Amino acid sequence: MRVIVLGADGYLGWPTSMHLSARGHDVVAVDSLVRRRWDTVCGTHSLLPIARMERRVARWKAVTGRTIEWVKLDLRNRADLTELITRYRPDAVVHFAEQRSAPYSMIGAAQAVETQYNNVIGTLNLLFALRESAPTCHLVKLGTMGEYGTPNIDIEEGFIEIEHNGRRDRLPYPKQPGSFYHLSKVHDSHNIMFACRIWGLRSTDLNQGVVYGAQTPETELHPELRTRFDYDDIWGTVLNRYCVQAAIGRPLTVYGRGGQTRGFIEIRDTVRCIELTVENPPQPGEYRVFNQFTEQFSVGELAERVRAARRVHGLETRIEHVPNPRTEAEEHYYNAKHQKLIDLGLQPHYLQDTLIESVIQLVEAHRHRVRPETIDPRVSWRDGARGRLARPKARRPAAAGSAA
Amino acid sequence: MRVIVLGADGYLGWPTSMHLSARGHDVVAVDSLVRRRWDTVCGTHSLLPIARMERRVARWKAVTGRTIEWVKLDLRNRADLTELITRYRPDAVVHFAEQRSAPYSMIGAAQAVETQYNNVIGTLNLLFALRESAPTCHLVKLGTMGEYGTPNIDIEEGFIEIEHNGRRDRLPYPKQPGSFYHLSKVHDSHNIMFACRIWGLRSTDLNQGVVYGAQTPETELHPELRTRFDYDDIWGTVLNRYCVQAAIGRPLTVYGRGGQTRGFIEIRDTVRCIELTVENPPQPGEYRVFNQFTEQFSVGELAERVRAARRVHGLETRIEHVPNPRTEAEEHYYNAKHQKLIDLGLQPHYLQDTLIESVIQLVEAHRHRVRPETIDPRVSWRDGARGRLARPKARRPAAAGSAA
Repeated sequence: MRVIVLGADGYLGWPTSMHLSARGHDVVAVDSLVRRRWDTVCGTHSLLPIARMERRVARWKAVTGRTIEWVKLDLRNRADLTELITRYRPDAVVHFAEQRSAPYSMIGAAQAVETQYNNVIGTLNLLFALRESAPTCHLVKLGTMGEYGTPNIDIEEGFIEIEHNGRRDRLPYPKQPGSFYHLSKVHDSHNIMFACRIWGLRSTDLNQGVVYGAQTPETELHPELRTRFDYDDIWGTVLNRYCVQAAIGRPLTVYGRGGQTRGFIEIRDTVRCIELTVENPPQPGEYRVFNQFTEQFSVGELAERVRAARRVHGLETRIEHVPNPRTEAEEHYYNAKHQKLIDLGLQPHYLQDTLIESVIQLVEAHRHRVRPETIDPRVSWRDGARGRLARPKARRPAAAGSAA
Repeated sequence: MRVIVLGADGYLGWPTSMHLSARGHDVVAVDSLVRRRWDTVCGTHSLLPIARMERRVARWKAVTGRTIEWVKLDLRNRADLTELITRYRPDAVVHFAEQRSAPYSMIGAAQAVETQYNNVIGTLNLLFALRESAPTCHLVKLGTMGEYGTPNIDIEEGFIEIEHNGRRDRLPYPKQPGSFYHLSKVHDSHNIMFACRIWGLRSTDLNQGVVYGAQTPETELHPELRTRFDYDDIWGTVLNRYCVQAAIGRPLTVYGRGGQTRGFIEIRDTVRCIELTVENPPQPGEYRVFNQFTEQFSVGELAERVRAARRVHGLETRIEHVPNPRTEAEEHYYNAKHQKLIDLGLQPHYLQDTLIESVIQLVEAHRHRVRPETIDPRVSWRDGARGRLARPKARRPAAAGSAA
């Protein structure tokens, strides 16, 4: 199949591009490279050095003989995007091209607006481009489990059967997102559902859990094929951050009481889920939702898992509870369904001590690059950020596409 | 109270400004005047001639002795908006300042993006301005009954108690909006609910039904105090359009089978609902939803009501079913609650033949101004619009603020 991967420069976009290419699909990798600029704005970077997109696709060709086409493009530019869709007429578009950090979206008004503009308008542009030039294309959209929030009832996959005053209907699952970023994904979901209903487009919305891990079989083929690894307060996901804290001998910092429970997924399962979704498209006009995660943990439990994995090697790790920068329930019911991708054939990699250990070893090999000052939370849900983070315009833009 | 009315140049914004002023509130009327530009773009106009905002507030002062302050401002400009909120520190902000036409939002990609950008980003800017300078201000936000769509269960006011797999929670009512405009209101609702939860802002979201009628006690005081009256395919609401069709001796055109059932409200009740809401604010941190309508009708029934009102005067009116430009259910269950505004003291004006007759008489006095070519639907939900409507940029912008 011909597949366009939007957001192909990111943590998951790049491994997905390679994985689909390795599976025999013709992949067009598209990105605006804004993620690298946001690093400059936030004073953050990828712990593992990453190559420019040009180097990556050249290296992929050299190592595998397969071609990934690379296109620099911003989804906010509707004309360019429509031209791209018209030129390639893809069978599937995998859409990662969104600002994906909750803390970034909470820095202040500029970042909240930037997040919702980039994500919602970018996706709107994509929907119109698909209607215009590729109405049978399958839109594989990355959503987030964070769209659901933490309701006191079981979380279903996108829709819920409700009985009310003696009548029944199957309705979109009520959403209670917890940041301007998560809100943007809820807005997208509503827009996409509508476009499927009105225009007969087809889409799968993948409500993904928190991703952890650093490597897939493809990223391990060559150092220039690595994907980014974030551990800071803005872009780092919680388990990756814990691994970095463990590797540099710092305490693992748990936000608040630590009972915040979420769905988690390993990066190797992410790329497999995308593959399964692309290869099993919905019917024309169908909008379906898969919850894309494999296990639930509380952030406190995860810290304990890291401590246990270290203890096997005789290493003691401290766990420290710090004030929670987020406004969220710290003890709550959480039971989210995640059956549909299993039904398609996903065989999950469950979290093991060996995975934690391998991530920590990878971090240790790059520990001289760790910037400890970027780990502690700088963005409060209540007050936003102060200082440098809140004034991104004062900083010069990054050289787009340079190796970090 | 000091009240800022955003969108004060519109069909409802101007009567609301006068009504709140007449009730003794200090009103600041704010608008970008974009609505008058959209008229030029769409080839539409107000059937009743309307004065410039400067004339209106001067006339209001001359007739009543009361001051309405007039400020031209666009909510998309966050700096200006924040300065406005900081200068006046209002007790309440009534927010009508959104692109409010479903057909306009469905013309094409440019209009869908314009609608969601104007509405969602404008409201985001407002939320940040309130947090910054008026965190105890009551945000009275105009939503729409169209956010709910037509579910097969009763529609509640904003939230629904759900029992699922033996557990219970009170959750946001699931939304199934039917146009990019209605979607923008759903996005707003989620953003506002979040801001109340995180920052302790307070807001009432008024999910309003379809408004009809042309006059309030204040608009009748002087011709320069009239509000706009739309009857075309883009801006006209269904009953107002029927009245124009009846007045010029044309058939009433019912879209599709005509079983589309919605909540309706008379314009005099709209301004009273706003007054009741402003004078009964929610608690800090509270986000509440009122369904602001008084009666349910199908669009077919409404046509029959107009025909019956004409028949009293010995006039025969034809009803014609035309292909439905919208994608919507034409026969469906509909039962929406609307108790909360009644509980606050609303005494509804129910639809009467005399109201229909008075609107038709008003139209007849201006029938020389009717542009019949703007009544039939030009925008299809499936295909958008062709021709002039789809290319707004080719037309010169209107002189802002000129009388139509």
